[in-house]
Amino acid sequence: METEFIAWLGDHLGDHPQLRVGPGDDAAVLALRHRSECVVSTDLLTDGVDFRLASTSPARVGRKALAVNLSDLAAMAARPVAAVVSLALPRQGALPLAVEIYTGMLPLAERFDVAIAGGDTNTWDGGLVISVTVIGQLTDRGALLRCGARPDDCILVTGDFGGSIRGKHFDFEPRVREALQLMAEYDLHAAIDVSDGLSLDLARLAEASKCGASLELDAVPVADAAYELASELSDGKSARDHALADGEDFELLLAVPPVEAERIVNDQPLDTTVTRVGTFIQEPGLWSVEVDGKRRPEKPRGFEH
Amino acid sequence: METEFIAWLGDHLGDHPQLRVGPGDDAAVLALRHRSECVVSTDLLTDGVDFRLASTSPARVGRKALAVNLSDLAAMAARPVAAVVSLALPRQGALPLAVEIYTGMLPLAERFDVAIAGGDTNTWDGGLVISVTVIGQLTDRGALLRCGARPDDCILVTGDFGGSIRGKHFDFEPRVREALQLMAEYDLHAAIDVSDGLSLDLARLAEASKCGASLELDAVPVADAAYELASELSDGKSARDHALADGEDFELLLAVPPVEAERIVNDQPLDTTVTRVGTFIQEPGLWSVEVDGKRRPEKPRGFEH
Repeated sequence: METEFIAWLGDHLGDHPQLRVGPGDDAAVLALRHRSECVVSTDLLTDGVDFRLASTSPARVGRKALAVNLSDLAAMAARPVAAVVSLALPRQGALPLAVEIYTGMLPLAERFDVAIAGGDTNTWDGGLVISVTVIGQLTDRGALLRCGARPDDCILVTGDFGGSIRGKHFDFEPRVREALQLMAEYDLHAAIDVSDGLSLDLARLAEASKCGASLELDAVPVADAAYELASELSDGKSARDHALADGEDFELLLAVPPVEAERIVNDQPLDTTVTRVGTFIQEPGLWSVEVDGKRRPEKPRGFEH
Repeated sequence: METEFIAWLGDHLGDHPQLRVGPGDDAAVLALRHRSECVVSTDLLTDGVDFRLASTSPARVGRKALAVNLSDLAAMAARPVAAVVSLALPRQGALPLAVEIYTGMLPLAERFDVAIAGGDTNTWDGGLVISVTVIGQLTDRGALLRCGARPDDCILVTGDFGGSIRGKHFDFEPRVREALQLMAEYDLHAAIDVSDGLSLDLARLAEASKCGASLELDAVPVADAAYELASELSDGKSARDHALADGEDFELLLAVPPVEAERIVNDQPLDTTVTRVGTFIQEPGLWSVEVDGKRRPEKPRGFEH
């Protein structure tokens, strides 16, 4: 089935200026531009954990498999160049399934100028597994790491949070353009993409930067989906709880020096809103501040793999 | 379990001069040297197809997952730089399984100067899946592609063939050093690594080069394991049949102009034997020549994915 599938793929992949040797040889050759660094990220998605094939179209799953990787490049302020895609497909109906997965993935690849540089397509007796590795390049501003936050930096976020299970966890927009635009126009110190939960990923960024974070709970932008989910589940969790802990928002969480943060919040340079939700502090750990102004320890909540 | 595993991994990964940002951030940053091209290859291995966890140690499986990728880089004459490793692990015993897999992989990575640049470690209700992506760099001699063979080029192979299921399919030596040494000292036209069967991969190389191949059956170096397997199975297949069709030999198959091929065969510059097994010809397709000197059409045999 791989031979047939590669033939299908050949008809559906366009040219890419940086792809010197594409799928079909033993490896792909990419021509990198300007700088000698390349940025690499990989994510593997499995049926039953990251998606349920029984209730989701393979096209949405394919889109997501690439999008989560692009979100990682965004968090580094890297420009995507290429991706390789490996599939473990159930034997029954493998070819149409592979085609549908790519049908969801290719428009996103095209929109972000990502060359599909190769992959490995297999069938087996198990469920669907999709592994995507993306390669990107840095701009002249370098890489935006997790470890650059400093005390007094503001915590900024793009978009809103919570209830992603209602659809955003498949259909989110990887914040690649937003990250590149902010990186080009402002002085940023650190970033992470929120995949496992706002509070958990904030705690991770703070820890990597050897500082703490104080989250202003009332400032967190809560998605409509979080309200809908809270009301639907009625399990005692508020919409804000969902915003803090749900994960798969794939928004950017940034550490930005105060003057620059004020500029960004005033300028609102992106198509999506940028919100200040707190401050990095000297004291380690995650803290929350409510309207009363008191700081309390906050347990990082989210999805632990 | 991923947090624990990353902690274990942190204690077991050394520094690498080209790895600027390693595992733990959203992506890895690699510094490439000299040239601006990078070479990318990926392979995904599943339980039941590429290995059987019930009868093979996880360490051997982990070694193989990296080795098959290094073999692809060898076939491009690329020097390995880094790898990212994604695992889908059965929930039961996931952590010790991941540790054992890496315990088999890391010594090979070290021996070939491969930085483990990152990965994604997941548990799920299915079987073990390992996806490895390697990144390499070309030397000043450029890439050795599949499409460069010309009529009258000699077909050279490293090592011997057949019966890899008796052990070589796990314990083979990726021919990275051999490829780089041949590329540096001789004029080579094309290469492929024999993963799916000598006759099938030869047919693929010939097709990619828009020519044919004439295989001298008596010249094919047959592995001891192929004789052992033929005698064990007694299913009418000769040792030579196994050498032509078994696959997973992970030897190099090269297209080399006649004068250079003679030099290589005389010099025997590698630790493993290089053998001339035929000639590329104008007429498309795969042909075989037996001792009687007659050319007959040969059906490519091997593992079709």
